[in-house]
Amino acid sequence: MAFSPMVDELVESLRCLPGVGQKTAQRMAFHLLERGRSGGVRLAGALNQAMDAVRRCDSCQNFSDTDICQLCAKPERRTGTLCVVESPSDLLAIEQAGDYRGGYFVLMGHLSPIDGVGPEEIGIERLLRRIHEEGVTELILATNPTVEGEATAHYIADRLDGQDILITRLAHGIPVGGELGYVDGFTLTHAFRGRKPLSE
Amino acid sequence: MAFSPMVDELVESLRCLPGVGQKTAQRMAFHLLERGRSGGVRLAGALNQAMDAVRRCDSCQNFSDTDICQLCAKPERRTGTLCVVESPSDLLAIEQAGDYRGGYFVLMGHLSPIDGVGPEEIGIERLLRRIHEEGVTELILATNPTVEGEATAHYIADRLDGQDILITRLAHGIPVGGELGYVDGFTLTHAFRGRKPLSE
Repeated sequence: MAFSPMVDELVESLRCLPGVGQKTAQRMAFHLLERGRSGGVRLAGALNQAMDAVRRCDSCQNFSDTDICQLCAKPERRTGTLCVVESPSDLLAIEQAGDYRGGYFVLMGHLSPIDGVGPEEIGIERLLRRIHEEGVTELILATNPTVEGEATAHYIADRLDGQDILITRLAHGIPVGGELGYVDGFTLTHAFRGRKPLSE
Repeated sequence: MAFSPMVDELVESLRCLPGVGQKTAQRMAFHLLERGRSGGVRLAGALNQAMDAVRRCDSCQNFSDTDICQLCAKPERRTGTLCVVESPSDLLAIEQAGDYRGGYFVLMGHLSPIDGVGPEEIGIERLLRRIHEEGVTELILATNPTVEGEATAHYIADRLDGQDILITRLAHGIPVGGELGYVDGFTLTHAFRGRKPLSE
């Protein structure tokens, strides 16, 4: 670009955002300069603060402003049930559904030996320690239904083998509001095998 | 969201970017926190600087760090030819093509009475003054080939009526490398009417 080093630098910096290439970064920069200066200043402040101060919660590994995150700090969340998820966005999705009221543990990834991600990197020891310390009675393994997610769930279950803890996986089946004709075969098979009496 | 006010604020602030909704903002925030902290800090700095210091060039109305932008400050760009474009990204596209070496005037929009955008808002008086002061001999009206862009071009041409200035529009035709079968009818009509002898 030829006309302004500051605009160049802004465009270049915006490219650190995921899914933002040269053209999108330009569009974003021009939008902010033309019509969103106050938004831009606010974003700069939020970035500075978050990049500097957000760390991992000592209890659940999720992002947090403080040593223990707001969710882990609530005593009513210590129900003896712990839900293991792969990422903060999974936790958010479950929280937004609003039904589950227990604790969480965020792996921040899944086992993937090929990428050098072993049990240490996703905090399995910390998870086992917490299960022991809190006297968890049910562990819900809500990792993704992918190869890596399943492997991670099985690994955790193996590590807890022989202990008196109920270990569960989320149910597979037809999405609510979904049409049978559009559901894939694997999901349908799961739905058939997991069928329930109508009266339940 | 439940777990961190700082992350909430970051997600909310990212939504000021065009085309970024709740989910994308979350993904961006988590990406920066997990893997892009240095990029986030750099972006914050670039935003702060640009939002505060970038203004309009006094000569061409484009974004600039200084009173007169780097492009207008080059004496070799005063060729007597002035190219009028709607937006900084149009200017960039022409600059990247690399063939045109004259000056620019950026309208930062187009005439649109319904949105309250009249000649004053897009700097027509400033453009006319500059044409007069610089002794411009050719004015290229490179506004977009849309209804508003055409209207804006015609308005500018009308205002210069009777003066000894060559006023031109960019040629319409088949894009280079395009296939005839995919070109729309209007463009084909323009391409036929604008056909040239092969020897030229």
